Amino acid sequence: MTAETSKRKILIVGGGAVGSVYGWRLQEGGAHVAMVCRSNFKVVKETGYTITSGKMDPVQFIPDAVYSNGEEAVAGNNVFDYVIVCTKCLPNLYDPAEVVAPYIISDKTVIVLVQNGIGIEEPVRVRFPNNPIISGIAYIDVDQTQSGIIRHGGTNFIVCGFYVKEGDDLNAYNKDNAHILEDIKNVFTAGNMGINVQDNVQEYRWSKIIWNGSFNPISVVAGCKDSKELIDFPPTRQLLLDAMAELYRVGEAVLGKKVPPVAGQDSPESVLKYTRDRDAPVYPSMMVDCINKRPMEHEVIVKNTIVAAKKCGVAVPILETVYALLVSVERSYCPPKN
Amino acid sequence: MTAETSKRKILIVGGGAVGSVYGWRLQEGGAHVAMVCRSNFKVVKETGYTITSGKMDPVQFIPDAVYSNGEEAVAGNNVFDYVIVCTKCLPNLYDPAEVVAPYIISDKTVIVLVQNGIGIEEPVRVRFPNNPIISGIAYIDVDQTQSGIIRHGGTNFIVCGFYVKEGDDLNAYNKDNAHILEDIKNVFTAGNMGINVQDNVQEYRWSKIIWNGSFNPISVVAGCKDSKELIDFPPTRQLLLDAMAELYRVGEAVLGKKVPPVAGQDSPESVLKYTRDRDAPVYPSMMVDCINKRPMEHEVIVKNTIVAAKKCGVAVPILETVYALLVSVERSYCPPKN
Repeated sequence: MTAETSKRKILIVGGGAVGSVYGWRLQEGGAHVAMVCRSNFKVVKETGYTITSGKMDPVQFIPDAVYSNGEEAVAGNNVFDYVIVCTKCLPNLYDPAEVVAPYIISDKTVIVLVQNGIGIEEPVRVRFPNNPIISGIAYIDVDQTQSGIIRHGGTNFIVCGFYVKEGDDLNAYNKDNAHILEDIKNVFTAGNMGINVQDNVQEYRWSKIIWNGSFNPISVVAGCKDSKELIDFPPTRQLLLDAMAELYRVGEAVLGKKVPPVAGQDSPESVLKYTRDRDAPVYPSMMVDCINKRPMEHEVIVKNTIVAAKKCGVAVPILETVYALLVSVERSYCPPKN
Repeated sequence: MTAETSKRKILIVGGGAVGSVYGWRLQEGGAHVAMVCRSNFKVVKETGYTITSGKMDPVQFIPDAVYSNGEEAVAGNNVFDYVIVCTKCLPNLYDPAEVVAPYIISDKTVIVLVQNGIGIEEPVRVRFPNNPIISGIAYIDVDQTQSGIIRHGGTNFIVCGFYVKEGDDLNAYNKDNAHILEDIKNVFTAGNMGINVQDNVQEYRWSKIIWNGSFNPISVVAGCKDSKELIDFPPTRQLLLDAMAELYRVGEAVLGKKVPPVAGQDSPESVLKYTRDRDAPVYPSMMVDCINKRPMEHEVIVKNTIVAAKKCGVAVPILETVYALLVSVERSYCPPKN
């Protein structure tokens, strides 16, 4: 199979804001796109998505199939080429492997995990040791304003690469499976999505954690403040800088090299400036989740980062303080699983 | 004058929960007690206070005078023997010396500052360099449930001693002014209040900051949790222990000796156990202030502690983090003064 000769069968697990834009673009690129929807299942099944974007007129995206569960999705031995996971990752609430498990009936299916945080891949790898696993980091500006109604700001690119078991030879794996990376690159490019394939994508998880591990939890425990409010108030501005400095230290210790810059941002100051210079304030996802009384991704974004820091002997008192406060705040509306 | 021969003229500035109990006890002990009231002025002026206590039937406390401002209080050259300040201390919002200034028309008036925090005395000393200043630390369990209605748990003792300019000889001052300490001891004892006079009361401010500097701000930024909730949730329990460890280190560095134990509490673990073993959960004052959208005493309790830590070269990343978050949360309901 090549991108030119065959219509790829793609399943997107998590038909929220990010998943819907991925589905839309990949279908435009020629793929057969099925979606797994939960809260918006009825709307999407009946009328699809309406996507408004800064770049174009509102479009209607009608997935080739819409499922609410695995039984429907794999009925008749339906094997997907790609299962792209666009859900939040909440290992403190459930096993992340269970989220994809119902849709994987073949070792050939490539699992693409487009989720935030550190250490998100391992539970899935343990459950599906023979499937290729691609770790993807999304740079996308999108939200679902109503069920099935999506506002897309325009930015949409993904950094990705293979995830392998710790200790396995990533370079050898990359070489042996270069055709998969080539294929996914074609599929994404056909859909006019930016894709940057990396030999070691984990380095870029650390790039993204610089922002996610600072702005996200601090926005919540500072009283649900957006990026502009946090940056413009000197005490929280300094706290952000200090928290990012901790995160850079952890990333460097884990990687044994500098954290790769993203869009030229290679220091706490430059990340702050980049964020402040955006037209609209950024609403960190944890802040939005907290306001809407939804669980927050504190385990993969904050806790796993603290665990990585401890392994490397890097002190992270700010992250530890913010983490304890964050889970205490979440407990107010969303009691932890026992 | 001695306590035996003359009726002391006492003015209590701040007729809230703490001030009312002080007034009540001191009047019972034979003093002439005037109160300065603000929000509850009308009620107290008309009907006095109703004080319920775990130890006795509700009592009515009618102050000998109730004032709403300094002009009334000092009319006719009315000089007080003691001006006891029981207000919150909020130097970020106003000059603390202004709170007592209207009531001091003689160098003979002893100023007693019964307030929380570190560094509360200096602004008053600068303004009134010739008045004796007593720094007092209240251990009292009381709140005002409605205007003029006071619930007193029973505990009521004060640790106090002179405050002098940094660099001045405190021992010499103590000796020269022993009669004042003796007098205040008599006055408080006559009112059946516990009083513990100390040569260096500042040591005991650090004892109290161990609890106040940890439970208070953490209760707010953890999502307004009371002492029991904070202690029973492992992440905030550990954060309390770590924050108290920082505070003990600062206190030791400032004092050049161990922080004196209070009620046998001489470590983070023992403070936690003492607090957890109380019958009812403690509602930290900052938590109560935050819920009621009132300014919090973060400057004297947290910021001044951080400043003291920096002077001594003690790292306090937890306190700094919690402080930045605390002022950000306060800003949501109470914009800072520019």
